[in-house]
Amino acid sequence: MAPVKRLVVDILKPHDPPLAEFTTHIADVGSVDGVTASLIELDREVQNVKLTVAGDDIDVDATEAEVEALGGTVHSVDQVSCGERVVEDRPVPQDR
Amino acid sequence: MAPVKRLVVDILKPHDPPLAEFTTHIADVGSVDGVTASLIELDREVQNVKLTVAGDDIDVDATEAEVEALGGTVHSVDQVSCGERVVEDRPVPQDR
Amino acid sequence: MAPVKRLVVDILKPHDPPLAEFTTHIADVGSVDGVTASLIELDREVQNVKLTVAGDDIDVDATEAEVEALGGTVHSVDQVSCGERVVEDRPVPQDR
Amino acid sequence: MAPVKRLVVDILKPHDPPLAEFTTHIADVGSVDGVTASLIELDREVQNVKLTVAGDDIDVDATEAEVEALGGTVHSVDQVSCGERVVEDRPVPQDR
Amino acid sequence: MAPVKRLVVDILKPHDPPLAEFTTHIADVGSVDGVTASLIELDREVQNVKLTVAGDDIDVDATEAEVEALGGTVHSVDQVSCGERVVEDRPVPQDR
Amino acid sequence: MAPVKRLVVDILKPHDPPLAEFTTHIADVGSVDGVTASLIELDREVQNVKLTVAGDDIDVDATEAEVEALGGTVHSVDQVSCGERVVEDRPVPQDR
Amino acid sequence: MAPVKRLVVDILKPHDPPLAEFTTHIADVGSVDGVTASLIELDREVQNVKLTVAGDDIDVDATEAEVEALGGTVHSVDQVSCGERVVEDRPVPQDR
Repeated sequence: MAPVKRLVVDILKPHDPPLAEFTTHIADVGSVDGVTASLIELDREVQNVKLTVAGDDIDVDATEAEVEALGGTVHSVDQVSCGERVVEDRPVPQDR
Repeated sequence: MAPVKRLVVDILKPHDPPLAEFTTHIADVGSVDGVTASLIELDREVQNVKLTVAGDDIDVDATEAEVEALGGTVHSVDQVSCGERVVEDRPVPQDR
Repeated sequence: MAPVKRLVVDILKPHDPPLAEFTTHIADVGSVDGVTASLIELDREVQNVKLTVAGDDIDVDATEAEVEALGGTVHSVDQVSCGERVVEDRPVPQDR
Repeated sequence: MAPVKRLVVDILKPHDPPLAEFTTHIADVGSVDGVTASLIELDREVQNVKLTVAGDDIDVDATEAEVEALGGTVHSVDQVSCGERVVEDRPVPQDR
Repeated sequence: MAPVKRLVVDILKPHDPPLAEFTTHIADVGSVDGVTASLIELDREVQNVKLTVAGDDIDVDATEAEVEALGGTVHSVDQVSCGERVVEDRPVPQDR
Repeated sequence: MAPVKRLVVDILKPHDPPLAEFTTHIADVGSVDGVTASLIELDREVQNVKLTVAGDDIDVDATEAEVEALGGTVHSVDQVSCGERVVEDRPVPQDR
Repeated sequence: MAPVKRLVVDILKPHDPPLAEFTTHIADVGSVDGVTASLIELDREVQNVKLTVAGDDIDVDATEAEVEALGGTVHSVDQVSCGERVVEDRPVPQDR
């Protein structure tokens, strides 16, 4: 099976644990080398966060399970890169 | 025959298999080195996904067959790069 | 005669042969090192495609003849780079 | 625990200490290698500032405590990067 | 006299000779290393083309004479770079 | 104390001394390696200028004092970078 | 005195001498390594041109004197970079 090397997920999380602690826990999932969490929107109850996860062979199920163990929910999986190398998604005229 | 080195296809897929599993299967097609799948739109029945596929000599038919074997349909082939090297599509004034 | 090193042409082609096969044939023209074909627009009868062709000494006539042999027509030649090296077309204030 | 390597926080601070002195104090927090403070908005009472903090293992609590010791308040944590390497947050179609 | 190293000219040309042949002739001017011709606009009678010409010591008069010998007219000289090195025209706030 | 390595200040200055002479004087402040002054707006009495100052350990007070000695006033300090290295201020979704 | 290394000036010049000849004369000023002249606007009487001048120690007065000797007038000095190195003017949130 081709390994997953990059994963972008859109999640909702409660305010607690705060974002830095939350992100640290995702980065601690065995197969993950690095995570960047960007706040998209924030209201009284929840934070909408975009997670960009990188690794040589990301365990997608374990990553999603960790989001849920921390009280979050995966709203959508927005990008997945698989294979020997990460192929960048380049703009094409049909994107317009 | 000049080899296909990059392929961008716009597809529709059912929600199942989920995007990470779907992308892994495309990356497992023999001639493919890497795939990035980006979610464009999502409704109750289907996901509209942009696949960017890279390899030294991509088997286009096998790639499209795999999309269909996974329940998807190819809506359009949006970009194809062939030959000894990948030529980038640069903006020209006529694009406006 | 200064060699042509990059050529951007706007073409119309029938749906058959499909884009990947079409592009492979253009890349097989003797003097061509690489081709990227980007879909601009698609209707029931034809596809409007932007071809970016690179090579050390592109045979422009042979390239255009191949487009026509495949059932396509050259709508316009949008950019040509000639000489010992490819000079990039940089933005200038008068472009506005 | 995966280390925090980059942190972006949106803060409010009084006019005193001035921005250069304020930023120097944040950069003096033990675990911080560099800080860039950008003024977002300024009114009669407060300055709204975006802090981008980098380090090999940033102490997030100590950084936030220093902001408060200087009279500021953390309005939101806007981005956190954790793990062995910093993963850049790339644009995906779902950002639109 | 400081040499001209890059020249951008806006020209009008008849449809014949076609753009690739026209550009080759400009690139054959003695002092020119490379030319990129970009189609700006096209109507029934003429093509409006932006020529970007590079060389170590471009003969501007000979280049303009060649444009005219091919039936074209120079509408405006839009950019000239002179001296030991090409200085890029960077955006400044006053451009707005 | 962490050194200040980059400083962006928005100033107002009289027309005299002219911008080149004014900028030279700022660059002569002991701790400054380079300064770029960009004209933002100009009216009959004053020039609004953005100063970007770089150095290994900029003396902020001496820099501001020089602006004032030359008849200028510091309108706002817009960015400060401190520490062992300059951290670039990257765009985050919350900037929107 | 810190040397001026880059200078951007907005000038008005008559149509004669033409832009290439005009730019060559500016590049011939002793202290100048390179000049790029970009046409901003052109009417019946004058050309509005942006000059970007680079050198290790530009003689600003001699450069402006040459503009005037050629019949031009300096409308505004839009950017000046001084010191041991050229500091780029980076965008900051306050530019908006």
